[in-house]
Amino acid sequence: MSEPYDPAAFPPLAVTVDLVLMTVQDGHLAVLLQRRSEDPHKGDWALPGGFVGAAESLDDAAQRILADKAGMTGGWLEQLYSFGDPARDPRMRVVTIAYFALLPEHRLRDALAGRADLTLAPLDALPGLAFDHRSIVDHAAARLRGKLDYAPIAFALLPSRFTLRALQQVHEAILGSPLNKPAFRRRMLDAGWIEGTGEREEGGAFRPAELYRVR
Amino acid sequence: MSEPYDPAAFPPLAVTVDLVLMTVQDGHLAVLLQRRSEDPHKGDWALPGGFVGAAESLDDAAQRILADKAGMTGGWLEQLYSFGDPARDPRMRVVTIAYFALLPEHRLRDALAGRADLTLAPLDALPGLAFDHRSIVDHAAARLRGKLDYAPIAFALLPSRFTLRALQQVHEAILGSPLNKPAFRRRMLDAGWIEGTGEREEGGAFRPAELYRVR
Repeated sequence: MSEPYDPAAFPPLAVTVDLVLMTVQDGHLAVLLQRRSEDPHKGDWALPGGFVGAAESLDDAAQRILADKAGMTGGWLEQLYSFGDPARDPRMRVVTIAYFALLPEHRLRDALAGRADLTLAPLDALPGLAFDHRSIVDHAAARLRGKLDYAPIAFALLPSRFTLRALQQVHEAILGSPLNKPAFRRRMLDAGWIEGTGEREEGGAFRPAELYRVR
Repeated sequence: MSEPYDPAAFPPLAVTVDLVLMTVQDGHLAVLLQRRSEDPHKGDWALPGGFVGAAESLDDAAQRILADKAGMTGGWLEQLYSFGDPARDPRMRVVTIAYFALLPEHRLRDALAGRADLTLAPLDALPGLAFDHRSIVDHAAARLRGKLDYAPIAFALLPSRFTLRALQQVHEAILGSPLNKPAFRRRMLDAGWIEGTGEREEGGAFRPAELYRVR
């Protein structure tokens, strides 16, 4: 900024990072929630988050919260938006830099085991959330819808090898509506993002489908 | 966030808003710069910005800086990204929420008159900027390029009535490369965003071109 610093007129503010960690579970976009152990909203579900340390960058804070709160490393991690309504936290003024993270469902299963304070909730059936976390989740879902066709985010929600059926399910989960199957297959194969592996999924009653990977 | 507040471990931080106010001048994307009157970087050009007040939202802070520093109201104003590298400001830890604003050139001309501390600099010939403001400007330019085809940002850089030639010039300024004229005209007329006004621009040596407006 371009003005001298006057801490009386412009006191420093609490700055946090909140994390919208999303996956696709049973064909539905789902988000990781943590039950709050402190007031306000004690006992309510909320996004995992934490304060930004004095010596860490915003990205590092997001990585740390992903690792400490959700037990995750890796995955797609991107800054979403900053939320700074003065009344969003009743205790004090808090500005939050929200990030979203994407992980395949199997990565989350272990992290959730034995954690009574964590849950994966489908976006179309969310419990009431603390603070303005519902609007942060909505913002993240809209960002995914907008990015789907020009960034490889769908692959962040899948294992390294996947069927076209699974890829379509991820697209439909993000968009919230069904897609025409042959048109989708054609579009994915033409787009050049994926290639066949020459292998097929483990057998079932039907002919096992071909497995693909990111090119 | 979900942990109790420990101000010793996580002290509050200085939070600012920095503004990337852009227009198209002579066919080039240009940004409003303000000369710093304080150290560090005293005398250097920088983005206009300011601290976020204790009782104002981030959007309100951005509007206030647009009005106070650049003398502007209205225009396209959107949050860009938050920059929080611990070393970005040598005086103290500062997290900045960067916004970008778009205005047609004629709106800026009056605001700049008689202001020795403000200048409009083309993005392809920027002076050295204070702090990390150059990377903030680059981020804003990339955002414009990404948004151009799916959001009506080009119209925010034009007067309410404009020729297709002027619209193409704005697109080319944002993309940084020339576009095929007949293909561009066809795409704009097919897209449905604009309509003819039935009027023509003020005369010149050539046949005056038709004026369009946003539908």
